[in-house]
Amino acid sequence: MILTVTLNTALDLTYRVPALVPHASHRVTQVIERPGGKGLNVARVLDTLGYETVATGFAGGATGAVLRERLAELSTVRDALVETAGPTRRTVAVVDTTTGDTTQLNEPGPTVTPEEWAAFRGRFTELLDGARAVALCGSLPPGIHVGAYAELVRAARAAGVPVLLDTSGEPLRRGIAARPDLVKPNADELAQLTGAREPHRATLDARRRGAHAVVSSLGPEGLLAATPEGLWQASPPAPVHGNPTGAGDSAVAGLLSGLIDATPWPTRLTRAVALSAATVLSPVAGEFDARAYEELLAKVTVREVS
Amino acid sequence: MILTVTLNTALDLTYRVPALVPHASHRVTQVIERPGGKGLNVARVLDTLGYETVATGFAGGATGAVLRERLAELSTVRDALVETAGPTRRTVAVVDTTTGDTTQLNEPGPTVTPEEWAAFRGRFTELLDGARAVALCGSLPPGIHVGAYAELVRAARAAGVPVLLDTSGEPLRRGIAARPDLVKPNADELAQLTGAREPHRATLDARRRGAHAVVSSLGPEGLLAATPEGLWQASPPAPVHGNPTGAGDSAVAGLLSGLIDATPWPTRLTRAVALSAATVLSPVAGEFDARAYEELLAKVTVREVS
Repeated sequence: MILTVTLNTALDLTYRVPALVPHASHRVTQVIERPGGKGLNVARVLDTLGYETVATGFAGGATGAVLRERLAELSTVRDALVETAGPTRRTVAVVDTTTGDTTQLNEPGPTVTPEEWAAFRGRFTELLDGARAVALCGSLPPGIHVGAYAELVRAARAAGVPVLLDTSGEPLRRGIAARPDLVKPNADELAQLTGAREPHRATLDARRRGAHAVVSSLGPEGLLAATPEGLWQASPPAPVHGNPTGAGDSAVAGLLSGLIDATPWPTRLTRAVALSAATVLSPVAGEFDARAYEELLAKVTVREVS
Repeated sequence: MILTVTLNTALDLTYRVPALVPHASHRVTQVIERPGGKGLNVARVLDTLGYETVATGFAGGATGAVLRERLAELSTVRDALVETAGPTRRTVAVVDTTTGDTTQLNEPGPTVTPEEWAAFRGRFTELLDGARAVALCGSLPPGIHVGAYAELVRAARAAGVPVLLDTSGEPLRRGIAARPDLVKPNADELAQLTGAREPHRATLDARRRGAHAVVSSLGPEGLLAATPEGLWQASPPAPVHGNPTGAGDSAVAGLLSGLIDATPWPTRLTRAVALSAATVLSPVAGEFDARAYEELLAKVTVREVS
């Protein structure tokens, strides 16, 4: 099975309103409730692709219970989340139905206690036994030390399980130094990490910091991969327009599935770009359009970069 | 006891952000969760004033469970809410901490089924036996017929229980025709009902439509009451500034408590205006500042209007 870790899960609410006007009152015309957090998105995409997937991390309170209910309704992902005393945070995406623009409101989330972190560490160690790959995804909740991902990367490596890290800021900087198999930063995360704005240079720089491979997101222009076998750029046939929520998580799912299938890098990157673009094209944030995915697989181009 | 009815309860969330910017992403710095809906606000104020209070209406799902938990934590109001299959709606008030301005997002709420309405009607009839007064407050949820408040007014009158109605639009129009003891419209609701913008004329007109007494809110300028004993205007010593959320509900609580204490109209109006102004002055939306209330009781002026 593939293991995904989401330490800062969220109950994602999408509110549709005709237009968001500050300091006015709005009737929400539609409410959608989804299990959220990057690792849970990755798990749902892997599940849809037919991979046996287990999700761990934290959930608690009434919002955590709803998150777990929705996850069970929407997927066959095995729920191995650890209970927290504090309630799972909500995020609210307010979508203007006239323009499609989104205003995001993110609750801070509960503080994880040392006992809860210890319980998670125990669960993580148990789950590594039997995992073919593990993805560590998203931000750290309050209460968890900044070196937590580095600690989990070392544990995965010690257990011989390939590990992918998708986070930002100091947790990314420390996590890379623990030598994960793969990191997947976007342009902003990369620039913050390396100080370099030019993507090729920044991607190579990130790899020198310790990651076995770095796959950088170039947004609508695809992915750039620095690997032991070479440097590649993978691009969709044309920039896609739509809702980019979850596109990066779909790319992570594509990379992980390619990793455990041991496909060559160009094939992995094709899958990741096709999944990512098919997610942008889906009307529901964080889900991918299966037909568009199949079509895109034949149309993504991968070229070796010198 | 005093009975309050909230057919369209809500879990009220208050999000504090430095400033709401459309189409940007925001970290919420503080989240407050409160039991919401006009009748529950009235019940909490009556409870704080020391009146035995029972709250009925509807609640359901995970959000309904949190609403009931919070109500029990914050008050000694007896919970006689009827369970719905659909989850209780949320409202989100986004407060700009720099200006204090509020942007409101209101979920539509679940549709109440005919069986749930029948269960409520049975509960309402049982609770009328023992009630000294009843308040019917707020909007009607989806699924409930527009004449519902008229039906409940008639049931209360048949049981000999004084009934106050605080709603708007067609449910108010129909409810007034069923001859409630008291209605408490604000300026907009009054104008919508009568077509008249001038408050004295509109208040007298509303009374001719069937209500025994009409107490109109003049916003920061106080209340205007058309009663069988005369016409009065009650005003705070100076217009108060702050958060007006729940100020109207506090006025309803003041009027109801005066009704069951059988105080003269000027005393009732003084209490209602003082509670309302003390609610605007409270830092927490929907709660009143107890010290300000005591001080305002001596400072509210009531004059008879010809």
